[in-house]
Amino acid sequence: MKKTILTGDRPSGPLHLGHFVGSLQNRVALQHEYEQYVMIADVQALAANAEDPQKVRDNVLQVALDYLAVGVDPKVTTIFMQSLVPEIAELTVYFMNLVTLARLQRNPTVKEEIKQKGFGQSIPVGFLAHPISQAADILCVNADLVPVGEDQLPLIEQCAEIVRSFNRIYAPVFNESKALVPKTGARLMGLDGKAKMSKSLGNAIFLGDSADELQKKVMSMYTDPNHLRVADPGQVEGNMVFSYLDIFDPNRDEVEELKAHYRRGGLGDVVIKKRLSGILQELLAPIRQRREEFAKDPAAVMQIIKEGTARTRVKTVAVMEHVRAAMRIDYF
Amino acid sequence: MKKTILTGDRPSGPLHLGHFVGSLQNRVALQHEYEQYVMIADVQALAANAEDPQKVRDNVLQVALDYLAVGVDPKVTTIFMQSLVPEIAELTVYFMNLVTLARLQRNPTVKEEIKQKGFGQSIPVGFLAHPISQAADILCVNADLVPVGEDQLPLIEQCAEIVRSFNRIYAPVFNESKALVPKTGARLMGLDGKAKMSKSLGNAIFLGDSADELQKKVMSMYTDPNHLRVADPGQVEGNMVFSYLDIFDPNRDEVEELKAHYRRGGLGDVVIKKRLSGILQELLAPIRQRREEFAKDPAAVMQIIKEGTARTRVKTVAVMEHVRAAMRIDYF
Repeated sequence: MKKTILTGDRPSGPLHLGHFVGSLQNRVALQHEYEQYVMIADVQALAANAEDPQKVRDNVLQVALDYLAVGVDPKVTTIFMQSLVPEIAELTVYFMNLVTLARLQRNPTVKEEIKQKGFGQSIPVGFLAHPISQAADILCVNADLVPVGEDQLPLIEQCAEIVRSFNRIYAPVFNESKALVPKTGARLMGLDGKAKMSKSLGNAIFLGDSADELQKKVMSMYTDPNHLRVADPGQVEGNMVFSYLDIFDPNRDEVEELKAHYRRGGLGDVVIKKRLSGILQELLAPIRQRREEFAKDPAAVMQIIKEGTARTRVKTVAVMEHVRAAMRIDYF
Repeated sequence: MKKTILTGDRPSGPLHLGHFVGSLQNRVALQHEYEQYVMIADVQALAANAEDPQKVRDNVLQVALDYLAVGVDPKVTTIFMQSLVPEIAELTVYFMNLVTLARLQRNPTVKEEIKQKGFGQSIPVGFLAHPISQAADILCVNADLVPVGEDQLPLIEQCAEIVRSFNRIYAPVFNESKALVPKTGARLMGLDGKAKMSKSLGNAIFLGDSADELQKKVMSMYTDPNHLRVADPGQVEGNMVFSYLDIFDPNRDEVEELKAHYRRGGLGDVVIKKRLSGILQELLAPIRQRREEFAKDPAAVMQIIKEGTARTRVKTVAVMEHVRAAMRIDYF
């Protein structure tokens, strides 16, 4: 039997090249080998955007279009909507009895987010309880594997603790899900080279960007601020164009030659930017084209989510039946 | 249109005379005037008894029997099972975004319970979040009124805050539920006179107690430890027999005469205990009889809960549709 994978995204904006490198590519690669569930985490997005539900609503379609555009195949991958799987909320409520406040407050991911957002004690409970609701996301389909970055390992550890508590107190219902950390671990930096690519920082190349937008963005990329004239020696480290070429250019030898040339001087930014632009255009053109194709029929895309959600619920309802039996609340 | 009431009990033990005085009587009185929902709060009971789910399971039937025995009429009152209404868990999860940790920690009811159970920071999150899940209980049927004791008013205030936040952020979906504090406010003390009647303190008269058990319990009641001989003057204050007669004896004049007699001496404990026993036997005999009658067919009792739960879900599903529309998660 195929192992089950659970993954997903918050629909708080369209997906970008960072998502492509960090997770989307991986999903396309894994979808035939595993039973893969991809969750559009609208409930989580609402937690962070409580005051702007329409934004979340609008981005559900955008995220689904991105999935389909990169080649996530709804025939083998199940795309579902978090808010339409009530078993996730039920599990969240039951798991909340198995985790203490102190334990949540020790979670490094929670700590980091509290610090970033300056919440202090006025953190919304829903936010604080993310590690619990994420365990519910994972366990509603009893996932074996969860693709995550290194920074999310504490969430997987919290999930495993919940599994051990539940299985000990009630009955062995859940798998102890394992993290599937991508080998490359590549986190794509933003165009400005200051932080990782992120919509909110305005340093992202979106999968839906037009050829023109893409071209302009590449031309604006941060290189070496001291490389003023072509003849000057330039720095490769921290130069975003080279760091992107390292990731996207299949011709390793040529990239090494270009780096050497850039270092000793005589290679202009425009040359390397044009090279990168060409490579990214080639990568993104078919994705953009498929995206535009799917975008013509939004109802069909929503139908894919609807069917995926129905398929997910077959699994979540079955998991919930085991949970109810274990908890002795299977009355009828 | 009739106003809606939400009330209920945790199935952690059979109900006793304290419940009868404090709430059950009230429910029977209100059930024709209001649309009354009575929730068997198994999810809450599991929070406090995570390690003993079978105990909760067993007490579901006991609590339902108590309801039917005292005259809660399933034709007009809807009895339902908390765990079988997933909309409660969904609302809990959504409401968790609207309440901060600091606000929960300021809740006097939560503070008191944390102190009583000695939790400190190792309080289970589910326990800490009770005010939120209780708001979800109340609002899943959009209740207008909630019968509570004075000590539970902070929970109603928390619920009202959630209503105001939700209605402001999303759309005006919920009523601001009001507390319905019983006029008498009578909290029945236990047989030992040390604390209010409670199963866990072993000082309770259960609605299902046999005539013999009832007799024995009344005879063991705490009176005046200095009233050694019949001829001695006795104390009425803190004397449980008199405090029960004050509540249950319809003949106020005779009770006042007995008190005067007891105070000046010459009235034995056995006489007043027999009087109280007679009154309680008369009160409880028909309840016990109905309880035994219903207990003969547990499947029929469970069927009443099943039908009540189905009736409740008609309402909760409708409420949830409004919630989804307000939150812009009404995709299909």
